[in-house]
Amino acid sequence: MATGDTVKFISLGGIGSIGKNMNLFEQGDDIMIVDCGLMFPDEEQPGVDLILPDMTYIFDNAERVRGVVLTHGHEDHIGALPYLLEQMALPVWGTGLTLGLVQAKLDEFDIKPGCEFIEIKTHETYQIGSFSFEPIRVNHSIPDAVGLAIYTEQGLIVHGADFKFDQTPTEGLPADFHAFARAGAQDPIALIVDTTNCDEEGTSGSEMRVREALMEIVEEAPGRVIMTTFASNIGRLQLAIDAAAEHGRKVAIVGRSMEKNVRVAAPLGHIEIPEYLRININQIDSYPDDELVILVTGSQGEPLAALSRIARGAHHQIKVHPEDTVVMSSSAIPGNEALIWKTVNGLARQGAHVLYGEGYVHVSGHAKAEEIKLLVNLVRPKCLIPYHGEYRHMLAFQDLAIELGFDKKDVHLLGPGRTLEFTGGIAHPGKSVQAGSVNVDGLGVGDVGDVVLQDRRILAHEGIVMPVIAIKRDTCEMVSEPDIYSRGFVHVQESEEMLDKIKHEVGRTATDVCAEGIDDPEVLYEQLRKRIGGYIERLTGRRPLVLPVMIPIDM
Amino acid sequence: MATGDTVKFISLGGIGSIGKNMNLFEQGDDIMIVDCGLMFPDEEQPGVDLILPDMTYIFDNAERVRGVVLTHGHEDHIGALPYLLEQMALPVWGTGLTLGLVQAKLDEFDIKPGCEFIEIKTHETYQIGSFSFEPIRVNHSIPDAVGLAIYTEQGLIVHGADFKFDQTPTEGLPADFHAFARAGAQDPIALIVDTTNCDEEGTSGSEMRVREALMEIVEEAPGRVIMTTFASNIGRLQLAIDAAAEHGRKVAIVGRSMEKNVRVAAPLGHIEIPEYLRININQIDSYPDDELVILVTGSQGEPLAALSRIARGAHHQIKVHPEDTVVMSSSAIPGNEALIWKTVNGLARQGAHVLYGEGYVHVSGHAKAEEIKLLVNLVRPKCLIPYHGEYRHMLAFQDLAIELGFDKKDVHLLGPGRTLEFTGGIAHPGKSVQAGSVNVDGLGVGDVGDVVLQDRRILAHEGIVMPVIAIKRDTCEMVSEPDIYSRGFVHVQESEEMLDKIKHEVGRTATDVCAEGIDDPEVLYEQLRKRIGGYIERLTGRRPLVLPVMIPIDM
Repeated sequence: MATGDTVKFISLGGIGSIGKNMNLFEQGDDIMIVDCGLMFPDEEQPGVDLILPDMTYIFDNAERVRGVVLTHGHEDHIGALPYLLEQMALPVWGTGLTLGLVQAKLDEFDIKPGCEFIEIKTHETYQIGSFSFEPIRVNHSIPDAVGLAIYTEQGLIVHGADFKFDQTPTEGLPADFHAFARAGAQDPIALIVDTTNCDEEGTSGSEMRVREALMEIVEEAPGRVIMTTFASNIGRLQLAIDAAAEHGRKVAIVGRSMEKNVRVAAPLGHIEIPEYLRININQIDSYPDDELVILVTGSQGEPLAALSRIARGAHHQIKVHPEDTVVMSSSAIPGNEALIWKTVNGLARQGAHVLYGEGYVHVSGHAKAEEIKLLVNLVRPKCLIPYHGEYRHMLAFQDLAIELGFDKKDVHLLGPGRTLEFTGGIAHPGKSVQAGSVNVDGLGVGDVGDVVLQDRRILAHEGIVMPVIAIKRDTCEMVSEPDIYSRGFVHVQESEEMLDKIKHEVGRTATDVCAEGIDDPEVLYEQLRKRIGGYIERLTGRRPLVLPVMIPIDM
Repeated sequence: MATGDTVKFISLGGIGSIGKNMNLFEQGDDIMIVDCGLMFPDEEQPGVDLILPDMTYIFDNAERVRGVVLTHGHEDHIGALPYLLEQMALPVWGTGLTLGLVQAKLDEFDIKPGCEFIEIKTHETYQIGSFSFEPIRVNHSIPDAVGLAIYTEQGLIVHGADFKFDQTPTEGLPADFHAFARAGAQDPIALIVDTTNCDEEGTSGSEMRVREALMEIVEEAPGRVIMTTFASNIGRLQLAIDAAAEHGRKVAIVGRSMEKNVRVAAPLGHIEIPEYLRININQIDSYPDDELVILVTGSQGEPLAALSRIARGAHHQIKVHPEDTVVMSSSAIPGNEALIWKTVNGLARQGAHVLYGEGYVHVSGHAKAEEIKLLVNLVRPKCLIPYHGEYRHMLAFQDLAIELGFDKKDVHLLGPGRTLEFTGGIAHPGKSVQAGSVNVDGLGVGDVGDVVLQDRRILAHEGIVMPVIAIKRDTCEMVSEPDIYSRGFVHVQESEEMLDKIKHEVGRTATDVCAEGIDDPEVLYEQLRKRIGGYIERLTGRRPLVLPVMIPIDM
């Protein structure tokens, strides 16, 4: 029975929603951070570039924070780190590729001097304050990913991280089943489990299947092969490069994030692309189509990425040729489906042959139900903490855990800011801490909140109408013709008659208010807002944002 | 060999994209319209309510139009009809339920007097001008759906309509294989084929499977069963009602469109809900949870529909109970995935047990590859016209047709406005006609075009900033303090310093322009727009819409 300090696990970031993964472990005077990710906004957050976890709790406890451990190099695990390191100098532990990807990001930031980057290897143990941890090799859709065995005062906590079990991986070795089994022999107090694909039966499938499919496609394609995948899926890029080498094709890599990742991964040995094989995008027209593989960004249909521009016919260097084969070697992040199909249709309409489909040219990087069960049975922890899934996945995980013989009360579903405290080796809910989201828009962090987003939504749907008048500062008397400015409302040239009507109503409102002897511009503002809003709704059935603009003149 | 008039097939509406289905058949002086549907906007058309097909060609040829035949009652086949009948009186042919659903829509419109509605039955032949047609029973996700055998001067054209083949339907009979076979024996010149699920192998699955699943769920659910499906999926609603009756539960129906469809379908015999079984939403709290089935709208996660409001905790009458079972008896229309999962997560977070999954609580209403092959082999037409699918589906269909022994040139992929002409029984491309989309926003039809949508997109992403000044009408001299209005840009209270800087820059710009002796307000406007836009981008990294507001004052 553990008798040391109380140990706290705090889910600061993304549990309950995919993205911005960030977990804290606390004991005595030490806080250890695992991962520091961001997420990308959905359509209800127009104009927001990035979403960071709210790190107030970390800043408030800065003197106790001993460092950050990173499990792998995906944005939802490392993306917020620069924003943290801008505020405080910390040591950062991660595998070679993960640190390489972090460092490639830091140039654009003004990070505190004194940050230290420590490369970690599996089978080694590292100390962070009073914690120690051992990285455990897992398979995932990026190389050099690890889970963690974390030794605390209360016992061992196993963090499975983002994982799958690939028995025949094409890069590196299968996940370290032995290390998980050894951890399981130490009576761990908790296991943190990736539940992303928890509601899918069977296993996620091996990268070997994708390798075979890509080999065949590249061999048989009558023209160019254009392949997209996540830019960080280095292993998948390698498969395409191998297929190109095997079948006498050159390889061009197009898209900034993909080029950058290859630049980082190559010197570390995670991707191998012989000099003779690689060509520049400007050279592609010098080769016959059936001697080319082109790797492009845009697997999620991102409008500005290479593939989407090709699909729209808007890419300067790559136009679709009728015999092109396009391989969508990826799956949709929920919410991106429509954009992806738009890209596929655009390519198909220009004559490309588009291949897609999970289990064919793609397999997921996240474990499915059978792999999750195996992890749980290997580690045999006292309690389970589902992680990295939507709420529905966590519930599906709870059902699965019950099937595996766990009590429902030993499966802890933790929303952002929720805390689990271990005493006597037993977990129980602790006090929540501040958590949530901070929006990044352009250069600003945190200055775009709910009110601004609400306005953007209305602007997006109905546009804005601005009644404009100049008034005498002291009497609120109108001293100009009323005017109407609008954007996103109606086509101005074709709607002059309607806009004239609204203009007229503005004048009438201002005159009415003045006739009542009111000389308070705020009253006039409210009257204009309400009356013109109501008038427009009766006239058009729409409710644009109505923003009266009044200029006080001294005269 | 056919020797009659040339026959034209015009794809006016949705071929190439799902939605707004509308096809025209022409010979001599006669035009026959098949279906008149609308589509719903995607996220790139913010604020647009509906999208209609551009019917200019029909209006330009009004004197030749003989009427409209409807294949079934889905919005993407009947939704634009009221907008057509507002412009011209026409006879409309359709089955009982289809006409019932049309008539329930027409109340809100001011349709031309003289429209005639003619109920059609299978195995009967109807005359439209020089055309005649016979409806053929098909299975689909709405009852009373038909394909059409259309007799033209050039021979028989078979329109498969939206279809599936259900060997064990739970409503009505299997599709009329015999009628399709009889049509095939008449050497048809073309077959129009629903390609929606063309890229999915096997068959779409029978409604009988869903019946069994729902029976079991309703029997075993510990609390209430809350089920959603498309409001028009009358057959699915019947399955839930049958399960409720079988297992001693009452049924409440919640959501306007669902109530309306039941009201239309019941007197026609397409849905049967005994008086004793049905209760009002206000009565649900008078019954134990395990004696209730609640049917709700919101299968696509529509934010204002009943289920989404329940998921947000914002429904006045229905709060989630911990033992509730929610059945998502539907699939996602591409683009709606994120909203649907948000709904599922919201329900799960409140403790509901949410069931979903095709092949379990849902089967598609559209044929998959094996059914499509059977249709083609039954009808054995000279040429094929894929319909009702995205471009990728049409291409997949082309591959499938080639497997079935067709020449690629006999599969005609027709975008909107494209025409196919039959002479001597042979199809060849004809002259395109005007086609496209007309946006409906609020009460306005067609006044929201690309410019307005472009503005809305910018507004949605970056907001709007308005530098405001009053100027002397004759000299452009500034006669007020410059002011800044903004919406959707930054949180105003927290950004005063920045807004002051921008204000200052406005004043400086106006003074500079004036100092150059410029008295043209348009020059001042352009200068303000450019300089303030650039200044804001340097300051914030954002590019909001900058709209200078200048009020000319006579003084």
